[in-house]
Amino acid sequence: MTSPHALARSAPETAGAPRTTTAPRPTAGPATRPTATVRPSGAGHARHHRDTDPRVDVPALTDVLLGRYADLRRGARDLVAEPRFQKVEGLPAAEHRARVLEQLRALEAEGDVLRAFPSALGGADDHGGYLARFEELVVADPSLQIKAGVQWGLFASAILHLGTAGHHERLLPGAMSVAVPGAFAMTETGHGSDVASIGTTATYDPATEEFVVHTPFRAAWKDYLGNAGQHGTAAVVFAQLVSQGPADPRPVNHGVHAFYVPIRDAATGEFLPGVGGEDDGLKGGLNGIDNGRLWFDHVRVPRADLLDRYGSVAADGTYSSPIASPGRRFFTMLGTLVQGRVSLDGAAVNAAKIGLVIAVTYGNQRRQFAGASPTDEVVLLDYGEHRRRLLPLLAETYAATFAHEHLLAAFDDVFSGRDDTPDSREELETLAAALKPTSTWHALRTLQTAREACGGAGFLTANRLTSLRADLDVYVTFEGDNTVLYQLVGKRLLARYGQQIGGDPAVIARLVAGRAADAALHRMPLARAAQTLVDAGDARRSAGQLRDPHTQRDLLADRVAAMVAELAQALRPARRAAPEVAAQLFDAHQHELVEAARAHAELLQWEAFTRALDTVADAGTRQVLTWLRDLFGLTVIERNLAWYLVNGRLSAGRARTVTSYIERLLLRLRPHAQDLVDAFGYGPEHVRAEIASGAEAARQDEAREAQRAARASGTDPVPEPKPAR
Amino acid sequence: MTSPHALARSAPETAGAPRTTTAPRPTAGPATRPTATVRPSGAGHARHHRDTDPRVDVPALTDVLLGRYADLRRGARDLVAEPRFQKVEGLPAAEHRARVLEQLRALEAEGDVLRAFPSALGGADDHGGYLARFEELVVADPSLQIKAGVQWGLFASAILHLGTAGHHERLLPGAMSVAVPGAFAMTETGHGSDVASIGTTATYDPATEEFVVHTPFRAAWKDYLGNAGQHGTAAVVFAQLVSQGPADPRPVNHGVHAFYVPIRDAATGEFLPGVGGEDDGLKGGLNGIDNGRLWFDHVRVPRADLLDRYGSVAADGTYSSPIASPGRRFFTMLGTLVQGRVSLDGAAVNAAKIGLVIAVTYGNQRRQFAGASPTDEVVLLDYGEHRRRLLPLLAETYAATFAHEHLLAAFDDVFSGRDDTPDSREELETLAAALKPTSTWHALRTLQTAREACGGAGFLTANRLTSLRADLDVYVTFEGDNTVLYQLVGKRLLARYGQQIGGDPAVIARLVAGRAADAALHRMPLARAAQTLVDAGDARRSAGQLRDPHTQRDLLADRVAAMVAELAQALRPARRAAPEVAAQLFDAHQHELVEAARAHAELLQWEAFTRALDTVADAGTRQVLTWLRDLFGLTVIERNLAWYLVNGRLSAGRARTVTSYIERLLLRLRPHAQDLVDAFGYGPEHVRAEIASGAEAARQDEAREAQRAARASGTDPVPEPKPAR
Repeated sequence: MTSPHALARSAPETAGAPRTTTAPRPTAGPATRPTATVRPSGAGHARHHRDTDPRVDVPALTDVLLGRYADLRRGARDLVAEPRFQKVEGLPAAEHRARVLEQLRALEAEGDVLRAFPSALGGADDHGGYLARFEELVVADPSLQIKAGVQWGLFASAILHLGTAGHHERLLPGAMSVAVPGAFAMTETGHGSDVASIGTTATYDPATEEFVVHTPFRAAWKDYLGNAGQHGTAAVVFAQLVSQGPADPRPVNHGVHAFYVPIRDAATGEFLPGVGGEDDGLKGGLNGIDNGRLWFDHVRVPRADLLDRYGSVAADGTYSSPIASPGRRFFTMLGTLVQGRVSLDGAAVNAAKIGLVIAVTYGNQRRQFAGASPTDEVVLLDYGEHRRRLLPLLAETYAATFAHEHLLAAFDDVFSGRDDTPDSREELETLAAALKPTSTWHALRTLQTAREACGGAGFLTANRLTSLRADLDVYVTFEGDNTVLYQLVGKRLLARYGQQIGGDPAVIARLVAGRAADAALHRMPLARAAQTLVDAGDARRSAGQLRDPHTQRDLLADRVAAMVAELAQALRPARRAAPEVAAQLFDAHQHELVEAARAHAELLQWEAFTRALDTVADAGTRQVLTWLRDLFGLTVIERNLAWYLVNGRLSAGRARTVTSYIERLLLRLRPHAQDLVDAFGYGPEHVRAEIASGAEAARQDEAREAQRAARASGTDPVPEPKPAR
Repeated sequence: MTSPHALARSAPETAGAPRTTTAPRPTAGPATRPTATVRPSGAGHARHHRDTDPRVDVPALTDVLLGRYADLRRGARDLVAEPRFQKVEGLPAAEHRARVLEQLRALEAEGDVLRAFPSALGGADDHGGYLARFEELVVADPSLQIKAGVQWGLFASAILHLGTAGHHERLLPGAMSVAVPGAFAMTETGHGSDVASIGTTATYDPATEEFVVHTPFRAAWKDYLGNAGQHGTAAVVFAQLVSQGPADPRPVNHGVHAFYVPIRDAATGEFLPGVGGEDDGLKGGLNGIDNGRLWFDHVRVPRADLLDRYGSVAADGTYSSPIASPGRRFFTMLGTLVQGRVSLDGAAVNAAKIGLVIAVTYGNQRRQFAGASPTDEVVLLDYGEHRRRLLPLLAETYAATFAHEHLLAAFDDVFSGRDDTPDSREELETLAAALKPTSTWHALRTLQTAREACGGAGFLTANRLTSLRADLDVYVTFEGDNTVLYQLVGKRLLARYGQQIGGDPAVIARLVAGRAADAALHRMPLARAAQTLVDAGDARRSAGQLRDPHTQRDLLADRVAAMVAELAQALRPARRAAPEVAAQLFDAHQHELVEAARAHAELLQWEAFTRALDTVADAGTRQVLTWLRDLFGLTVIERNLAWYLVNGRLSAGRARTVTSYIERLLLRLRPHAQDLVDAFGYGPEHVRAEIASGAEAARQDEAREAQRAARASGTDPVPEPKPAR
């Protein structure tokens, strides 16, 4: 493997030319300021600040970004700055697993990780604070984050939220202290997203007052479970609860419930009788976690080990539940687990931040190809395409950070009980289902773009990017497959739309008429565009309008509303159609459903970013962040430009303005790029990438100094003269 | 780690409902046909063929895809079907490296890998055939492919193409036999794409008739070199050749030349005196390769070890070259190395094929969520969004395959000497620079989408996708960074455009006027649209026009032409501007330059696909491939829909038709998806993914049979009744 052969350097003839000018020294960046953490040395090259430019108050911006849980986040960052919690690259999987288990116990010893649990048991009943801390673990090692998520966020959390007081007293201490490493045995090889269809059964036997947990066929093996491959000694097993009470003529399937099932002998590590399984083996990342499979052959568990908050079975087999509807009961049970999605949203954004710190710092130091200067090569971030690749991702990372802060607040409101209603729960679930796909895909895109922007250096494990990307990969399909989550969001948007228009025939008639009018307008887009934006020939005035947050919001919100309305109209015939026809119709519009959800998520991000601007006191910082928000909004609009044109929301002329205004914003933001990544507040002990340590700047400076000295010596070789033509 | 919580199954109440219908058995697919290789068992589920549908003649299509070098490709595939050549996942890097070196020698023992070398030395002077075989190695282990590429495609090839007869006799046998593992020491830590600026010097000393190879500063260390970390005992080192002949008043830098430099003692593995370096360590993939760094401290090499085909130094220090212009000499030298890019293009397409075989096979067997049928769950490929994600990638893989065949033919024409002119070389380089970025990015996108489409199973190393993706990652930045290559293509397009319009002021005036007219039309797009396509209200007629290959070609070609013309106009002021202004202007348009190159590459792919249709004799196969070509063309158009709308090439109404016609094509192609991936001709020994082995179908069938039997027994539990409202 070697890197590119020569390219496009237009004048190789000038290499080594005698030059009488001395190389200008790099202008020193602003003096290192006291930020929350240590700034990577060497940052500050090539910022191109002019005196008239606004400046970013980096420490103040860090405070804004750390948000409501700033102190807890700082505490967690201090903790994961310790090497003992950090990933050691290249460990064999067995050693990596052992290390992560040890780290998990060390974390527990630090205490503060258990904030989500009841105060009576040593926690703090602080759900939001728990997640905020948890999200910072990704910077140490994503395997540690997910191992902690399996143990506390899933296994112990299921005991907490699906069990009752007796379970809490009896089972939570072991789960919290990691005395009992546990698996969350929901997914089966044959059923991932469709939990309601899992095959595992738990059949109540009144003779012994036990449940018989059983795996009926291979596809019903539990699969991909952290802690199941090796460390787990117990599991929360989800199974179809079957019971026949005295009043039931036949056994009744009460749907999916959770059971506490010991699976391994803690002393020997051997499976208990009737339990089997296998290791999932190597994975594309997260190899510090022992994912595995489990099966059960008529394993008997006491009646008391049904986690019975939402459904219980009396000694005689009589089933009862506080929630009468089996469907609502099922979704309520699963709804308690939303915190997994909330935390992945936050962790993914943090991983994206690390990627951008690395790529932007390197892009500010790495020089390649001569530009206008006869002696200085150009730093990467001064190339238009490099800015185009990185800065919109930076804008999106800010948007995702602010949107996550909103999600975390909504989560804490519900889980603290301050605002725990069916509506607020549904709102929280929809928000999490919209943001988790958006941010996890964003993290993969960002880490990959950052890796490519660092070239061959980006591919070295020492520079962190490939390792983080590999570990983050599965975030887009676990805890809710992103595509399935977007469909959930799309359906909720449709349902909400249906509620808004209600069953009122007049409303529907107006709706349909409105859509028909829209369709007619497709052939005359400007007519509709005129409703949204006054079309002006003056590009400056166009840009001014695009800068207006109301215009941005209208464009983003109108798209979501129009897509949902169009979908609703398209799907209307499904209501009265035969199942096959309805399924076909739904299938034909599945892509639009997913796109509508994505558009909704982007609107949420934009709104969160815009609200956050009000919290920024410093005028310079607010100005730069406003440009960044504009860049985010216009990048989203540009990505969907065809929709705006086809649907007459933008004229062709204004569509061009979108792109040219983006280019202008990229130039404006360029001098602030380093400040904007420094404000994430990570120090070298978090970033841990050689190319972002200042080493590249030192190498470049040494090379330029050597070349300057050679030129000054007057003895360096002259270039070969060009031949006479 | 566990997978998604419940989602969107609308009626969990029906789980386990008594059903009187028996589950329909899966319709058997077409009987297994004798293809080039063994079909994965279980393929053929759920194809939805109707009698009136065209059928794909899979073996005949495999022949078409294997192309000109079908026999050589089949031979290479037979070889890499042997486990001894295949990657063992999870090996520690040290063992993986040792295994790959051993495999390399085993490959050499098979002989046929050296076809590119002179017949006199045991080769076959068959450059195209060499690459065709080489590209198949990626299926065994990308590390083996790249290790072979370093040894034969770069190290030995540099001796062959940059050296002369004496070097061939003296140095090639050891390089060919791997007696001398060698590094290709071009890239430096401080200079990747900009080879002309490397810092290493080779200064001629007439007193001893030696070159003194020297690394002047840290940034000039050679870096990322395969074989440099551990195995290499020699290197071809690129350095600035400095010499002072009797006629030179001062030392002259003649630019970058290549030198043969021993680096390690073969017996001890220790660096030779004056040579140093270090291991690059772990990487994001390709860990079977020992990439490393090298530096030289005044290392003396004999005058004869300058590879002197394009430049030589007489004993007295007088420099001479068959190419007078230093610039043209430099690009000629580097041009001999185009084969790296050609082969990566082919290898990337092969990796994408493996990804699609896995995802499509699994998507045809995996069931999730109930659809219209009360008993059967839906196979993934019957979901609209799943088709939307995978089938356009399948179409693009076909396009890339045919485009690569064209590139390989052009390569062989030049390197065989059949058509070796400066123009044909430049054409070849431009073609490779256009296709390599397109196919390597495509491979990453395809492998990632395939991995996500397989959910958690896709993340397991046993299912291959994450491993292939990790190994392929660096393909997008090595052998020419993709973004830099696209810029090269863009510049060539601009130069070609400049030649076409020449310096004729009248032509330029017409051009400028034309562009101005265009700009005016931005506010009235339909006027321009009318020139290209007659706009019709009838959607069916619209679709008919979009199906017309001339329409597709016009749309794709017109976009390239218009983008280049617009760029040329925008950059015109740079000709007479100050360097800073010119650089700023160029920078402001860098993104468009890159976009124009991408559009050019997509047009090349479309044209290659279209030409290939003529070579398909079977009518059914040709029909299906024509749909696939249409899907490719329209997907490219859809991706750039905003451009077509802004520039008045498509009306809003017709733009909608693009998307609806794509949806129609996806439905038409869906029954042929398995045939289209089977036609790649890979057997299970190449695919090596558990989920594509038929195991998933067996699991699903077992589960459905168990559920059918339970229903038939009349004793399975009834669902909990819905509560009265």
